[in-house]
Amino acid sequence: MPAADRPQDRPFHGIWSAVLTPLGRTFAPDHKAFAAHARFLLDNGCHGIAPFGTTGEANSFSVAERMAGLEALVDSGISPATLMPGTGCCAGPDTVALTRHAMSLGCKGVLMLPPFYYKNPSEEGLYRAFSTVIDRVADSRLRVLLYHIPPMSQIPIPHGLIRRLDDAFPGVIAGLKDSSGDWSSIEGFIRAFPELAIFPGSEQLMLDALRIGGVGCISATCNINPHGIRAVFDAYVSGSADTDDLQAKATAARQALQAFPVIPAMKRLIAERRKMPEWEQPRAPFLPLDDAAWTTLDGVAAECGYLV
Amino acid sequence: MPAADRPQDRPFHGIWSAVLTPLGRTFAPDHKAFAAHARFLLDNGCHGIAPFGTTGEANSFSVAERMAGLEALVDSGISPATLMPGTGCCAGPDTVALTRHAMSLGCKGVLMLPPFYYKNPSEEGLYRAFSTVIDRVADSRLRVLLYHIPPMSQIPIPHGLIRRLDDAFPGVIAGLKDSSGDWSSIEGFIRAFPELAIFPGSEQLMLDALRIGGVGCISATCNINPHGIRAVFDAYVSGSADTDDLQAKATAARQALQAFPVIPAMKRLIAERRKMPEWEQPRAPFLPLDDAAWTTLDGVAAECGYLV
Repeated sequence: MPAADRPQDRPFHGIWSAVLTPLGRTFAPDHKAFAAHARFLLDNGCHGIAPFGTTGEANSFSVAERMAGLEALVDSGISPATLMPGTGCCAGPDTVALTRHAMSLGCKGVLMLPPFYYKNPSEEGLYRAFSTVIDRVADSRLRVLLYHIPPMSQIPIPHGLIRRLDDAFPGVIAGLKDSSGDWSSIEGFIRAFPELAIFPGSEQLMLDALRIGGVGCISATCNINPHGIRAVFDAYVSGSADTDDLQAKATAARQALQAFPVIPAMKRLIAERRKMPEWEQPRAPFLPLDDAAWTTLDGVAAECGYLV
Repeated sequence: MPAADRPQDRPFHGIWSAVLTPLGRTFAPDHKAFAAHARFLLDNGCHGIAPFGTTGEANSFSVAERMAGLEALVDSGISPATLMPGTGCCAGPDTVALTRHAMSLGCKGVLMLPPFYYKNPSEEGLYRAFSTVIDRVADSRLRVLLYHIPPMSQIPIPHGLIRRLDDAFPGVIAGLKDSSGDWSSIEGFIRAFPELAIFPGSEQLMLDALRIGGVGCISATCNINPHGIRAVFDAYVSGSADTDDLQAKATAARQALQAFPVIPAMKRLIAERRKMPEWEQPRAPFLPLDDAAWTTLDGVAAECGYLV
């Protein structure tokens, strides 16, 4: 392939962890545990960290909590060049505040949900929502990855919207995370926007995506399988013969996790393995993984090769 | 009917306007126009005002904007006993902050959405979300109306949740707004919880609801038809022979509006009739009503008897 198309040469690429947010006894984010976990992920294969996304329970935290959590990562010595926080909220002013804050810390980019309370918005309405945010942030360093996650947000990102934003703000729209889980959707984004960094929202379709111009993945499972997912990426980059086998192994590890509620399952796994009981708590409406499910997960974790 | 069951004798009753939020040139709430409109509604039939609900574009505003808007109503002289603001957000701390603020102003109650980003929460998870908020607000004056609006929030309020909350916090759960538009749902809530104030989220089903123990309605259309909807309520209370005719008239006025995007349509109608052009702007992702739709709406508004 031409050098310019190699994923490792592109500004946004690799495997990014949609990092979990550990809580303390009062259900507030535990900054020390948060920074330690992010460091662990970067040391074990992740190219970067995507804090306060869906897996990070972003929308369950206030703007102030999200800002303080992000600052804790940077203050701990994590390079902001490895950080791509979620900043998209229902309220435009919140999205502006979080995006400005991320830029002020030097974050590489932001992952932006559309406003998601009102359903079936028009493309023009979404364009105004995103363009208002970009205008108000008014920072030439801004790099936005749009967040397409219809199962949760219920608000798809249409191709026409991306094209209009890309035309209006050249260089600002850097890519898109597609958490639809639908190959035809991912393929459609990659084919239509080869200049953008298209990240599948799971490692399951990463290799297929890399082969047609995708750049990696932003995935929840990177919290517990960073090395396994990185191995797929590295094998693809080096043209290794075992690339497909490594993908199959990562996919199996992902599918095993998906038998459980993903956020509580990973939180409990980390709590148990690191003997940090507070790690197991999600914020409501999520519940901790129950003991019966934990017993099953405990059994499958070793064969999946999770690293915790 | 026994006096105790008469809607007009119950602590929460009547017709409440899910009030629109007018914006100024910078798309920030226009406090003067907001207070003037709320006063107009109270003077023309509304028993109360429900600011920052779905119609008020609540989730498009930051916590600070919502607090400032509510304060503007109270500062203008509107009695907090006529106010029931929406306070339910995705993030528990935001819900706590808005609810405490509403209580500190003396509001009669709050209308509380469940956290709505994560879909298919368990009943236990919703219980923890609501009970955490009530615990943290820690105010014996708190009166919560739960907000059941599955088409928008995607998160129904199950009967089991209401029963558990009512058992755990006697007197705090005061009622429920049902915006499902589904009579069997409304009837189910009224039959199951006769002690709670069950408000249909539209006047269309108000009379049917009043006849089996409902208490009125909390409706978007109260912004432009307060007198017409109040007439139904008063006719029912006084046992007037024309009650059904008045309901039919109010229903027709509602259905005419529903041919348009409701928020932009009402905003444009007010902007045109009051010659206040800024009134027509919603916040993205909504768009102002386009001229073709306005021409149609302008034609039907008179025969519907809208009062603006």
